[in-house]
Amino acid sequence: MAKLPTVQDVARIAGVSRQTVSNVLNSPAIVRGPTRERVERAIAELGYRPHAAARQLRTRRSSTIGVRLDPYAGGVSGVVLDRFVHALTERASERGMRILLYTARTPADEIERMGDLVDGGEIDAVVLTGTSHEDTRTAWLQSRSIPFVSFGRPWRSDDGAEPAHPWADVDGAAGTRAATRYLLDHAGPRIAFLGWPAGSGTGDDRARGWQEELSRAGASGPRWYSEESVGLAREAAGAMLAGGSAGGSAGDPGVDGIVCVSDALAIGAHLAATAVGRPDLPVVGFDNTPAAEALGISSVEQLPEQVAVGVLNLLMGPTGGVVIRRSADEDAHVLVEPRLVLR
Amino acid sequence: MAKLPTVQDVARIAGVSRQTVSNVLNSPAIVRGPTRERVERAIAELGYRPHAAARQLRTRRSSTIGVRLDPYAGGVSGVVLDRFVHALTERASERGMRILLYTARTPADEIERMGDLVDGGEIDAVVLTGTSHEDTRTAWLQSRSIPFVSFGRPWRSDDGAEPAHPWADVDGAAGTRAATRYLLDHAGPRIAFLGWPAGSGTGDDRARGWQEELSRAGASGPRWYSEESVGLAREAAGAMLAGGSAGGSAGDPGVDGIVCVSDALAIGAHLAATAVGRPDLPVVGFDNTPAAEALGISSVEQLPEQVAVGVLNLLMGPTGGVVIRRSADEDAHVLVEPRLVLR
Repeated sequence: MAKLPTVQDVARIAGVSRQTVSNVLNSPAIVRGPTRERVERAIAELGYRPHAAARQLRTRRSSTIGVRLDPYAGGVSGVVLDRFVHALTERASERGMRILLYTARTPADEIERMGDLVDGGEIDAVVLTGTSHEDTRTAWLQSRSIPFVSFGRPWRSDDGAEPAHPWADVDGAAGTRAATRYLLDHAGPRIAFLGWPAGSGTGDDRARGWQEELSRAGASGPRWYSEESVGLAREAAGAMLAGGSAGGSAGDPGVDGIVCVSDALAIGAHLAATAVGRPDLPVVGFDNTPAAEALGISSVEQLPEQVAVGVLNLLMGPTGGVVIRRSADEDAHVLVEPRLVLR
Repeated sequence: MAKLPTVQDVARIAGVSRQTVSNVLNSPAIVRGPTRERVERAIAELGYRPHAAARQLRTRRSSTIGVRLDPYAGGVSGVVLDRFVHALTERASERGMRILLYTARTPADEIERMGDLVDGGEIDAVVLTGTSHEDTRTAWLQSRSIPFVSFGRPWRSDDGAEPAHPWADVDGAAGTRAATRYLLDHAGPRIAFLGWPAGSGTGDDRARGWQEELSRAGASGPRWYSEESVGLAREAAGAMLAGGSAGGSAGDPGVDGIVCVSDALAIGAHLAATAVGRPDLPVVGFDNTPAAEALGISSVEQLPEQVAVGVLNLLMGPTGGVVIRRSADEDAHVLVEPRLVLR
């Protein structure tokens, strides 16, 4: 590797002392204009870069944000978090920040990893993903005064209080409201919801959007359940569609469309509808995955790229290039309205 | 943030000088056993960690590997590279290494980014992805003596020579050979190949596996082409299937199965076959994506997790925890045999 230029080299070329070069780098305001320009020209000419490790010791900043990357779990929707990490890497890079990945199997494990990275001066901040009820990680980050933003809102805990910390999330209920409204307008009044078993913050939020929009329209429809799996969703929707309503013929239980909590469930519902002779039964998924696109199934697009922008704005301010140590507003947040993609 | 323990604190608790603590950290062999144990107990008791930035300056190692993460491009197969990054992060973490992500739009841009990261002491090595003919990045990395391994083999350049550098890749031809053999055994002798337009290293390699297996069996079949798109593949395969052979009826051109270069093309072929009344025509894709799984389409699984292990073994040796500066074997490589997943 060629020897890199040093502060000494810059000082020699500019005809100034090492201290003056150091002042230009760290406190440019105290250096006279013409001298500063001479040093800056020498820096540019030599391609001098202060060594990152030295800069880190000086500033105690690594310009790096840590993000947990989980083992690949497969499944139709895994791609949303990957899109978020892609966008975060790009947007952070534009602002002079880097993304460091770490892995963890449990919240306790993640707390230990974050501790190592912060203590080692390797990251300035954390972007949490996958928030849950009673999240032990957020309390720990707050106790250590480590700047962080979560992708995912803090869900209400048992005592009814939402822990206050900055977060960005997708407005799931707004997405299913839009999907339900579209089906009410274009398919008919009986719109079913195929969702996950009750109890998950994200799933219940999406079910709420469907319920609210039906109520607003004075309509109603059945709520069906399935675990996150194309096969199980196909079985669940198949049983419901074949069962039919009292007056309906087999395969026609009076449902005009199905809003689904995920693309995996939407694909299952579509395959079930096709199997009972209703391939054109309108189905809307959630996440706008390549799988839904390939099958021509409409879906709610989460816009993870906008979540990434929101996370960085919360962490660094809308224009800054440095992580903000303490947020003025503990409960600052960004709620991204998703977009219905019709096919 | 609570004040972190310092070398001074360790020295005080252990009742030794700072220099002795420093020796225990950096040259333990020169410290007497009982003294060393006393210092190690104090380190454990205080939870002292040498600051990473200081360690970096001392060792000139960041224990970090850089990987380019591209903007999310969508499409059915984008998930393979993400799986690779997931696995690389996990396996690297087990070996005490971190993954730092960077972005770049062009090879020249990527060279500049890698230069910044290496000059800044932020990464020790690079894992290149997406190798191409006449790759300018590999020549640059070699000229700078920067350790690297590519996911993707060096493709032969115009003068017929393959540039020598360590690489890991998936044996695409072995994958399509297995798919072709399976279809010959279970579907019939006329197996088509739906591939990308000739000229891509990866695509031509996969076509070769199909061709070789057909020849070995004394069989033959047509080669069809499509760009990477479900819709275009559906049109291409649809035209071929509807056209039929001279003696065949419409929708039955005498093809017994189709091996495809990707899952997107396999989904298009499956939809085309369904449209001409042959929903059970065997189709095999490549990449084993969630979309193919959701549709019940067989596919060749790349095993990106094994590629990640291979990359790290090439970079660090099979057991080491430190990047190897110069590989003894410039052309060391790992070729992962993919696995046919039947549905």
